[in-house]
Amino acid sequence: MLANHFQNGIETAKLVWSRLPNSEDAEEQDGVVSRLSDASNVESLDYEVIENYAYREEQAQRGRLYVGYHVAVKWFFALLIGIGTGSAAVFINLAVENFAGWKFAVTFSIIQSSYFAGFVVYILINLALVFSSVFIVTQFAPAAAGSGIPEIKGYLNGIDTHGILLFRTLIGKIFGSIGSVGGGLALGKEGPLVHTGACIASLLGQGGTTKYHLNSRWLQVFKSDRDRRDLVTCGCAAGVAAAFRAPVGGVLFALEEVTSWWRSQLMWRVFFTSAVVAVVVRSAMGWCKSGKCGHFGSGGFIIWDISGGQDDYSFEELLPMAVIGVIGGLLGALFNQLTLYITYWRRKYLHKMGNRVKIIEICLISLITSSISFGLPLLRKCSPCPESEANSSIECPRPPGMYGNYVNFYCKKENEYNDLATIFFNTQDDAIRNLFSAKTFHEYSAQSLLTFLVMFYTLAVVTFGTAVPAGQFIPGIMIGSTYGRLVGMFVVNFYKKLNIEEGTYALLGAASFLGGSMRMTVSLCVIMVEITNNLKLLPLIMLVLLVSKAVGDAFNEGLYEVQARLRGVPLLESRPKYYMRKMTAKEACRNQKVVSFPRVVKVADIVSILQSSKHNGFPVVDHTKNGEALVIGLILRSHLLVLLQSKVDFQHSPLPHDPKGGSVPIIDFAKPVSSKGISLDKIHLSQDDLEMYIDLAPFLNPSPYVVPEDMSLAKVYNLFRQLGLRHIFVVPRASRVIGLITRKDLLVEENEDLATVELQSTSVSSRRHDKRAVGRSTEAEHPLLDGLLVENPL
Amino acid sequence: MLANHFQNGIETAKLVWSRLPNSEDAEEQDGVVSRLSDASNVESLDYEVIENYAYREEQAQRGRLYVGYHVAVKWFFALLIGIGTGSAAVFINLAVENFAGWKFAVTFSIIQSSYFAGFVVYILINLALVFSSVFIVTQFAPAAAGSGIPEIKGYLNGIDTHGILLFRTLIGKIFGSIGSVGGGLALGKEGPLVHTGACIASLLGQGGTTKYHLNSRWLQVFKSDRDRRDLVTCGCAAGVAAAFRAPVGGVLFALEEVTSWWRSQLMWRVFFTSAVVAVVVRSAMGWCKSGKCGHFGSGGFIIWDISGGQDDYSFEELLPMAVIGVIGGLLGALFNQLTLYITYWRRKYLHKMGNRVKIIEICLISLITSSISFGLPLLRKCSPCPESEANSSIECPRPPGMYGNYVNFYCKKENEYNDLATIFFNTQDDAIRNLFSAKTFHEYSAQSLLTFLVMFYTLAVVTFGTAVPAGQFIPGIMIGSTYGRLVGMFVVNFYKKLNIEEGTYALLGAASFLGGSMRMTVSLCVIMVEITNNLKLLPLIMLVLLVSKAVGDAFNEGLYEVQARLRGVPLLESRPKYYMRKMTAKEACRNQKVVSFPRVVKVADIVSILQSSKHNGFPVVDHTKNGEALVIGLILRSHLLVLLQSKVDFQHSPLPHDPKGGSVPIIDFAKPVSSKGISLDKIHLSQDDLEMYIDLAPFLNPSPYVVPEDMSLAKVYNLFRQLGLRHIFVVPRASRVIGLITRKDLLVEENEDLATVELQSTSVSSRRHDKRAVGRSTEAEHPLLDGLLVENPL
Repeated sequence: MLANHFQNGIETAKLVWSRLPNSEDAEEQDGVVSRLSDASNVESLDYEVIENYAYREEQAQRGRLYVGYHVAVKWFFALLIGIGTGSAAVFINLAVENFAGWKFAVTFSIIQSSYFAGFVVYILINLALVFSSVFIVTQFAPAAAGSGIPEIKGYLNGIDTHGILLFRTLIGKIFGSIGSVGGGLALGKEGPLVHTGACIASLLGQGGTTKYHLNSRWLQVFKSDRDRRDLVTCGCAAGVAAAFRAPVGGVLFALEEVTSWWRSQLMWRVFFTSAVVAVVVRSAMGWCKSGKCGHFGSGGFIIWDISGGQDDYSFEELLPMAVIGVIGGLLGALFNQLTLYITYWRRKYLHKMGNRVKIIEICLISLITSSISFGLPLLRKCSPCPESEANSSIECPRPPGMYGNYVNFYCKKENEYNDLATIFFNTQDDAIRNLFSAKTFHEYSAQSLLTFLVMFYTLAVVTFGTAVPAGQFIPGIMIGSTYGRLVGMFVVNFYKKLNIEEGTYALLGAASFLGGSMRMTVSLCVIMVEITNNLKLLPLIMLVLLVSKAVGDAFNEGLYEVQARLRGVPLLESRPKYYMRKMTAKEACRNQKVVSFPRVVKVADIVSILQSSKHNGFPVVDHTKNGEALVIGLILRSHLLVLLQSKVDFQHSPLPHDPKGGSVPIIDFAKPVSSKGISLDKIHLSQDDLEMYIDLAPFLNPSPYVVPEDMSLAKVYNLFRQLGLRHIFVVPRASRVIGLITRKDLLVEENEDLATVELQSTSVSSRRHDKRAVGRSTEAEHPLLDGLLVENPL
Repeated sequence: MLANHFQNGIETAKLVWSRLPNSEDAEEQDGVVSRLSDASNVESLDYEVIENYAYREEQAQRGRLYVGYHVAVKWFFALLIGIGTGSAAVFINLAVENFAGWKFAVTFSIIQSSYFAGFVVYILINLALVFSSVFIVTQFAPAAAGSGIPEIKGYLNGIDTHGILLFRTLIGKIFGSIGSVGGGLALGKEGPLVHTGACIASLLGQGGTTKYHLNSRWLQVFKSDRDRRDLVTCGCAAGVAAAFRAPVGGVLFALEEVTSWWRSQLMWRVFFTSAVVAVVVRSAMGWCKSGKCGHFGSGGFIIWDISGGQDDYSFEELLPMAVIGVIGGLLGALFNQLTLYITYWRRKYLHKMGNRVKIIEICLISLITSSISFGLPLLRKCSPCPESEANSSIECPRPPGMYGNYVNFYCKKENEYNDLATIFFNTQDDAIRNLFSAKTFHEYSAQSLLTFLVMFYTLAVVTFGTAVPAGQFIPGIMIGSTYGRLVGMFVVNFYKKLNIEEGTYALLGAASFLGGSMRMTVSLCVIMVEITNNLKLLPLIMLVLLVSKAVGDAFNEGLYEVQARLRGVPLLESRPKYYMRKMTAKEACRNQKVVSFPRVVKVADIVSILQSSKHNGFPVVDHTKNGEALVIGLILRSHLLVLLQSKVDFQHSPLPHDPKGGSVPIIDFAKPVSSKGISLDKIHLSQDDLEMYIDLAPFLNPSPYVVPEDMSLAKVYNLFRQLGLRHIFVVPRASRVIGLITRKDLLVEENEDLATVELQSTSVSSRRHDKRAVGRSTEAEHPLLDGLLVENPL
């Protein structure tokens, strides 16, 4: 063994380790031992700590002042993310509204003379928009396809899918979703906006694109995975807040649906980001009110105000509402299952045939969508306008393409309207507004609603998984509000009460479908309340969501989980699997051959081990004077690759290196987001290099988490999941216990005057003194340690 | 050492442990090894697992069917908690409203003839109500004093304060808060309602009071700390939901403020509980609308609708709003500091003098409060009524004691009103409604508002910490809305715009004071939105909360943290202290003398160790044949006490017991909530008993979490905090690594066809097959283990 080349005694080893957690003092000596530092900052612990040697070092170098500075930078970035995401949302909304508005205006001016010419123009415009979208995505930003939420969820769970947070993905997402939504496909822009927010956050955190990025000192605070993920979480919340104008909903969405590890400090910052978004969006809308934004203003930012609707509900209505919940659960679960099959088939057969097939596919779907949405209303017989009451604000018929109900489209008489065109041949925002509208009893015939439901459901399923940015919120709301309104019509007819509004049922239907498909609860509930601006329906939305989620859960998992699984993003669920209770940690890794490194290792050995094994982390084992082995830490493949590439830490002697520690710039250890990192093949090592040695001690994580070999795997899973780890060492059972740490030991400064927990009355001021005393005593200890440090360099 | 009495080889020891996580199969053998089972269920891991031997056994016994049953029971209890808390809230509200209404009605009928007589009657009624409250609390339920939120927070953080969840506390809380709120003190009923909800949840979970409780089989699902805490979390959310009619706010309050460990499964159930509360409260209010509830109906359940107010805001207004935030932060921090000093002084001097002093104290405060609220308005000159516009719904003056603005009280002319009486000499709910009211410009003079602010602030500080149930929400809203309205008056005068509403500023002021004092963010924001029923002000409330929390944080901690600290409830914060980064685990327990037990131990030794040490957990160390020591687990003091008390597991032989395992009924190991558990002094052991032995193996936790000795304390803290542990073993550094567990090992069923994480397309159906195959293979292993089990009994 290489390890026998040197004979450092167990005392030296102990000294090394005893110093580790004191790195902040050691740092003052000139950064000597700091490279060996344990995760000396709390914050880096719960999250990916092992992966972040560079970050730990960063933190080791910082004092209290630096912490304050770090916090300030984080808040500043939260502000930037809010502004950036809000602006992106405004831009997308402006563009979509203007394209769609222009499209309908052109089409309607043509159909005054010829319906056929209008049909052709309508199809062509849609096709052009969709083609621009799919072209951008396939040629330029393949990771921008789909909603992006499963991938972001995966990223925050610990899996960095290639390409999802790149600058090109951001560009592809923004322009792609303008094309696909403007082109009238059965998809929404809300999911992509969440992804957009995440991209903006990630890019801001690394100071720009991978190629051209700022590398200034103050951006290095975000070089850790954990901080980047905090930023991305803020970005997600900002995306939802911007998409729905639902700031609280955004916070809750990030909390419930996206993040895997949540801390209350983060909540506070996410909340701030959402508030910034709300202000940005509001300012932009205020600016657009003056008419400077073209067609924008009437639709766009979702708030489908239903405050004029039903305020109250009677108990008989709870039954039909529960029925809506059940329908939502069933249709949502079916949607998840169908999209799963279709996506699976697409990935396995269709999309393997290259980009051309992807483009043709979505163009075909666009053709079909346009034909259906234009053609079906033509087949529909128009209905006469309802008799307008006095004081009623209902106008019938309206000219087509305008905001409002009762659209006149291909009707023979002047005072007729086409109910199918009102919802089908319209922008989705306006269609939903019409479905949610109150005081419009019997506007739609059951036949039209059913036709629309079947057609749109099919289109939504087919469109899902194509190579364009696509969200499922708006299609979900469309589908749900359609059957909701159907149930509402039935209820109105059955109960014959006047205070029942079909629009309320449409809203509940929308909530039920989203609940049945996405399986969110609190966040979805708040989003629904925020987008409809009606708090009084909250208990009803809760009820419907409970039912639909419960029904959906009986069949399959939520949409995002299903899709993440399909994309090979292995999400760690919050609970371990049942079979894990029956396995030990040892059994879980029984097929592994553990490859460990000695402390000082030959470069050739590193290369051969890295080539022969696929592991990402290796234990480092040192030997004491009397030959006893001692696990001294964990070294990461990525860090070894950085060391091999830089070569600065190579040494000729097989003895431990002098305590100067590594000289590779810390920043090099940080892997850029969404990249594959360094490849071993690309590192060129001469024969001389291969004969040299590296002392791994400065680069390893000295205290990775360990579990005894016979701990149940379920317990290990929880440790792993709760702390967000990447590696856990399975070690033999200990021979003795050095100490027990209890709650009291972790409240050290209160130990002196709090003999027991139940002690009722204690002096606050005296405790304060103690705190200071403890502070002093730990400080007083350091000169001793520093002295040791100087006397016994490694 | 006793351990040398027997010589079981390392093979036997290994066999024991190898079986542990397979307890569910072993169980089928007749429960033999199940007592040795490791925490074989995932759910019990993250939370107090070590304390819950009995629970683990419960779970070991249950199969998948049992899990389903368990889930159903949990949901049923969530329903019960919702109904119970909702009903309690309705009862308290009814009682308070009726008492207060009756009080004002009597007073006003008397002051028609004599103001002095009215004054006396008013004081006496208040005194009687307050006395009833303080009498109940001091004589019957001392734990019902105060708001209870700090204690509940402590309970959910892991500290069971004596008495907080007893039946008598529940009763004391309900009737005490009726008296104290009805008696017109400067306190609210919302905090106590949270405590009430928690009590109801806890009592339901244990099937009744400590003395008379159901002990049926199906209640045993809640015998674990973790399940009880889940119930209490539901109860807290239900309390908030009931107190403010804010179901989403309740969920968020439980999430942000109260719980320390949160799981998304729990969120779902908490959400359901809140929804049930909303329905219960709504039904009760519907029933009361018919006039069956006396004075109730006009006030009571908070919804201070400000939907008629300001819809929009201009950017100039953001500055005064930020000023409100700053004022809120300053006054809130001052409030926390003053109440800290006063509570400290009370606990140290005043309340030590016994219950009589407590009663006199609060009665004096009641006298002062009544005098001020009646007397000060008398000194105030009345103002003439504003000229009523056409179509205005404002009525001036109104008779006193009625719901509405412009109260005529001690005015000389008919068309005058007393602005101070409108807010001061009124129920708090009505006063807040008046402060929030829109379209009432310049109703209050700055002088009156300032007088009220100073007086009420002082009263709230003085009342805080007395021996009656007391919430701080309503006083906080009163204080905040007063200075908010003051700022609003200034803004209206300064900007001279018509669309600025003083009521909106009052709302923002209320939010700012609560933010500055309680330091909640998202939950408070949602609660404010829900109680005012106006979503449009959301971004403004967010802004104000951000400012006020930031300002407050510069001075001190939040109200609940300060109070919890003062009461000796050692909350573990979510971040470790700064100094912990510099300490190792070993240093944290350097003063400990670790007392460990051998596997089979003499009863006399147990007694002497329990007497001589104060530890709550002890390592159990076994020796292999060749004398090598091996830590085999952790035994708890409470479990040892149960064993000593029951005596059934005593044995004569110092050799390991036969594998029948312990025969103490499992249920005995569960400690009732809020009780002190068994005392060693009360266990009577004869000399014969003392000479006997106990084999601890069936009763210990075989794999407590371990950390290496040189891990930084900050890292240990995080492990401890995140997993909600009570004990961690500090052990020497391992000599070798048996295996590394990574994400891939925890996704075992996907190992076969997912070679790498990035693999894009995988067969879903084939993976399903694999899952089944893995299931079969683990099942297939068990007969072997079972065989071993029979062949080698312990």
